[in-house]
Amino acid sequence: MNSKFRGVIPPVVTPLTAAGEVDRVSFENSLNRMIDAGVNGLFVLGSSGEVAFSTDDRRKEIIQTAMEIVDGRVPVLVGCIDTETNRVIEHALEARELGADAIVATAPFYALGGLPEIERHFRLIHEAVPDTPLFAYDIPVCVHTKLPGDLLVRLGLDGVLTGVKDSSNDDVAFRFLVDDNNKAGHPLTLLTGQEVVVDGAYMAGADGSVPGLANVEATGYVHMWNAYQEGDWRAVREEQDKLAALMRIVTVTSGVSGFGAGVGAFKTALALLGVFATNQMPNPVLPLKGENVRRIADVLKENGLELAATPEEVSESTER
Amino acid sequence: MNSKFRGVIPPVVTPLTAAGEVDRVSFENSLNRMIDAGVNGLFVLGSSGEVAFSTDDRRKEIIQTAMEIVDGRVPVLVGCIDTETNRVIEHALEARELGADAIVATAPFYALGGLPEIERHFRLIHEAVPDTPLFAYDIPVCVHTKLPGDLLVRLGLDGVLTGVKDSSNDDVAFRFLVDDNNKAGHPLTLLTGQEVVVDGAYMAGADGSVPGLANVEATGYVHMWNAYQEGDWRAVREEQDKLAALMRIVTVTSGVSGFGAGVGAFKTALALLGVFATNQMPNPVLPLKGENVRRIADVLKENGLELAATPEEVSESTER
Amino acid sequence: MNSKFRGVIPPVVTPLTAAGEVDRVSFENSLNRMIDAGVNGLFVLGSSGEVAFSTDDRRKEIIQTAMEIVDGRVPVLVGCIDTETNRVIEHALEARELGADAIVATAPFYALGGLPEIERHFRLIHEAVPDTPLFAYDIPVCVHTKLPGDLLVRLGLDGVLTGVKDSSNDDVAFRFLVDDNNKAGHPLTLLTGQEVVVDGAYMAGADGSVPGLANVEATGYVHMWNAYQEGDWRAVREEQDKLAALMRIVTVTSGVSGFGAGVGAFKTALALLGVFATNQMPNPVLPLKGENVRRIADVLKENGLELAATPEEVSESTER
Amino acid sequence: MNSKFRGVIPPVVTPLTAAGEVDRVSFENSLNRMIDAGVNGLFVLGSSGEVAFSTDDRRKEIIQTAMEIVDGRVPVLVGCIDTETNRVIEHALEARELGADAIVATAPFYALGGLPEIERHFRLIHEAVPDTPLFAYDIPVCVHTKLPGDLLVRLGLDGVLTGVKDSSNDDVAFRFLVDDNNKAGHPLTLLTGQEVVVDGAYMAGADGSVPGLANVEATGYVHMWNAYQEGDWRAVREEQDKLAALMRIVTVTSGVSGFGAGVGAFKTALALLGVFATNQMPNPVLPLKGENVRRIADVLKENGLELAATPEEVSESTER
Repeated sequence: MNSKFRGVIPPVVTPLTAAGEVDRVSFENSLNRMIDAGVNGLFVLGSSGEVAFSTDDRRKEIIQTAMEIVDGRVPVLVGCIDTETNRVIEHALEARELGADAIVATAPFYALGGLPEIERHFRLIHEAVPDTPLFAYDIPVCVHTKLPGDLLVRLGLDGVLTGVKDSSNDDVAFRFLVDDNNKAGHPLTLLTGQEVVVDGAYMAGADGSVPGLANVEATGYVHMWNAYQEGDWRAVREEQDKLAALMRIVTVTSGVSGFGAGVGAFKTALALLGVFATNQMPNPVLPLKGENVRRIADVLKENGLELAATPEEVSESTER
Repeated sequence: MNSKFRGVIPPVVTPLTAAGEVDRVSFENSLNRMIDAGVNGLFVLGSSGEVAFSTDDRRKEIIQTAMEIVDGRVPVLVGCIDTETNRVIEHALEARELGADAIVATAPFYALGGLPEIERHFRLIHEAVPDTPLFAYDIPVCVHTKLPGDLLVRLGLDGVLTGVKDSSNDDVAFRFLVDDNNKAGHPLTLLTGQEVVVDGAYMAGADGSVPGLANVEATGYVHMWNAYQEGDWRAVREEQDKLAALMRIVTVTSGVSGFGAGVGAFKTALALLGVFATNQMPNPVLPLKGENVRRIADVLKENGLELAATPEEVSESTER
Repeated sequence: MNSKFRGVIPPVVTPLTAAGEVDRVSFENSLNRMIDAGVNGLFVLGSSGEVAFSTDDRRKEIIQTAMEIVDGRVPVLVGCIDTETNRVIEHALEARELGADAIVATAPFYALGGLPEIERHFRLIHEAVPDTPLFAYDIPVCVHTKLPGDLLVRLGLDGVLTGVKDSSNDDVAFRFLVDDNNKAGHPLTLLTGQEVVVDGAYMAGADGSVPGLANVEATGYVHMWNAYQEGDWRAVREEQDKLAALMRIVTVTSGVSGFGAGVGAFKTALALLGVFATNQMPNPVLPLKGENVRRIADVLKENGLELAATPEEVSESTER
Repeated sequence: MNSKFRGVIPPVVTPLTAAGEVDRVSFENSLNRMIDAGVNGLFVLGSSGEVAFSTDDRRKEIIQTAMEIVDGRVPVLVGCIDTETNRVIEHALEARELGADAIVATAPFYALGGLPEIERHFRLIHEAVPDTPLFAYDIPVCVHTKLPGDLLVRLGLDGVLTGVKDSSNDDVAFRFLVDDNNKAGHPLTLLTGQEVVVDGAYMAGADGSVPGLANVEATGYVHMWNAYQEGDWRAVREEQDKLAALMRIVTVTSGVSGFGAGVGAFKTALALLGVFATNQMPNPVLPLKGENVRRIADVLKENGLELAATPEEVSESTER
């Protein structure tokens, strides 16, 4: 329970310039803003951090830049996301070299396999970077496999896994995982990847959360975490209600889907708030424009956030 | 219809040494055997070619080795498989540099998106390597998106795509794609990725096939293609019947699934036939052993193939 | 191989009056037209026959009407489709009472289960109507389970199943099923439920076909079957090409999907051809109208079929 | 907010005799036990109530028996589950005739369709029984469609739907549905169909729960509901923790799946507790036996429940 990876650990959204390069100034704005809000850690190169869209050089640049900006103020977890074991291990070695406090890996994907391959995958990664804490990233919507709770706890007991980032959207399985982990002596630090049902995950006993929306509004998640630590469930619920209302930025748009709608909305909100210089997206995704930007601006205003840029300015912040 | 990519184009299985390195001698054996059998091209680094399991260095080694061995005897298509556009483009530039005759790319995967992202993805890849023929690889079982026929034909007419490798296992959609492609003036070369229903794909009008089983038995597929070109459907059917019986090597095993069962059986058969030195598999997959190897040996013998190694020798060809 | 259920056995589309009642005159037109074209049997109350939309009384009326019209000229198979065993058995007893030559049942659906439940389901149905031939209807798109080939062959050898209607759209599995069935002594009569890849199913060795499009154009399917029996593959292919072009009636529409698009197009074509009085659909599906009807009319005309009603007349044949 | 359908409304498990008939005595035991525990309503013929397995006569018998036993003490909701609209309407008319306080219907299933058909389906059911409250049953695992929140709220505002029973296991969508429903003036009564994450659903603002486990242990769910009404979140969590531990009866078994594992465990627990005379299951499902019964007994004992029958007695309570 003394894990250094408890609490609010936002999956960091990566700011790009209009030309599609990493925007260092916006990155500083955003990371400092979250650290100042009191987050307990940062998760770089998660799905929201455009890991899948970034070349190896770009991934290295993102990690290095983040490590420099954070400068030890909070632990940094680094996503080492790739199709199969040997490719993941390369990313893991690089992340360790760059100073990652922990690495995060999914089940293998693209090629078809079964549970024996998944288990061996995590064991081989751990063997390659034995001193670096390893989190399993359970994200079936991307990798099309759900990590079974008994496998996760077994890998925790064997010292292979330090924790789990649960983005499975399966609250029943998460509940049973928490209980199994507790029965086993709490080998795993269990983090939920949710935004609008974090209250439920805390009721279930989560050790923390990794909410993408915390890029836009970290303070609320920090308050919710603190209230949870104090057993103040009424406050937990109130914070969650406010954050759920804000999360509507990802549902008010039209004509977009998936990463373009979700991370697109986060980037657009951050540009409207003046944290990011643009809402540029990585290839092949296009940034949100026009009416979609206006609707996001409306949600931000309805929820009491102050805009630093107009929707038109954000729409014009990129040429594409 | 004068495409240089018509006919039988096996997806090349990559031989590994017991230590997991690329086995150059076995690679030569196998590629020469297929070229001698009369195949019309080779597809390196497809799903069967362990592209997803190979690091970038390994991918480069596989391409280079294959290009040297083939030495211009047949066209070589190279799989440039990665999650999203910019990563795929890096592989495409490398493949072009190494002399690929064409590159093969799937829809983006891991991150969620929609048709606009898929279309832009292929257009951006083509822009990056405009003089290199580009094949779309339709493999929903791996990337979880089915490429729509109208999108493919449109990209063909626009000069973005040269062809399609169809591994969608959707014979109805393939039939309609062939017809639409014909109506549009045949901009696309359409290859089926099937093994046991190639006869049906030829009835539908396919321009060729990419059967993994051709690594084990290329001659039959060449005969079937020639019979198809001559309109001798009785011979097409007879060849397909024989190859379907041989394909049982992928279904007689137990306790394995996916890549480990499919490519595992191909490698095991090739080791039993003396073409490969081992049946080693890439991490995290284990090679087939014991009873599974014996069952594959039985299928080979029942189908009249002569074994050069015993099942025991193959089982012991790797330590894992 | 002397099965009375070989050849072309169309799944009968049920004509409705504008008020939604069974239209006996249109039903006679349609069944007589198919029998005159030489079909080898008829499958009443299949998925296309709106079994899922029909109350028990309606189902009885459809069976009775069909049996009276057919009057023993060809065998009649009757779909006994319902969620679980005891409900299916009730339909089976009724179908037997009404003179069905065979009954057709899917795997159980709605409730979740596994292979043991599926096997027991078919065995219990057979026990309830032991003297009535039983076909398994493999239609995963509706029941969300694929029937495994080894289970089917085992039930065939045990005398539980007489045959399989394969609407799984999995041509690889069908190929292996045909081979396994042959090896076992051909206990099962294997019918494909496809329309545009029947040629491939015949190459694989199917014992017949159940194409919905045969309601619109039975003659072509009869020709294709005869050509297959004579080994004239060139003619098989030519007939399939023509029928695939005609099948575009189900893809030219917009704004509709599933049953409404597929059976909706069949009914609309039959109304345009003067076989059906209306293109009325069962609740909650609406009949095709306007532009969608015109597009179907265009496909019919392009394929040389003569219209007996204008698109406007068909659009106005129902009030909804 | 004055809905008579708020609170704990267990989906009633149907007891069978060894011969497979409805066991009236056990039914009385069970319903009285739940009513005495303070449940706010009962949901008869839900998925757990074996609606899919029951013939129409059996369904009628179950409703009649339940209505007689309940005798107005709590409201009774009746599941009217069938493939398409007209079949559902027949069940709805019957349920109304037998005195149902509300009816519950899923989206259409088996045949493929889209949102227009789903919306029309619910509207036509409501037209057929306009004075009977209608609940939408959102259960994608059975019907393979997720009901969209905006459709549900629109049907609520139009007076078509009285409420929703949410068994979608999608807590994010449920959260947004609760919020949208509140913004619209709370037209819908929103019930969660969960067992182990009811606390989270209450945090989100659910109007009640429909937990299958309440057949085994209703008191805990009643306590949790009361604690929620009083804002005592600590007590909500404690009750949920205890019930989650008890819910392990559905995960400790092996070799069974789906309905056989879930409802099979509930029936076995009820037989062990002496509430049911047997743990008999409907065709084609077999009752749990031997080791599986012993494991369930162990879970019950670990959670402080007193057994009235031995595992052996329960295993022998049926012949199958």
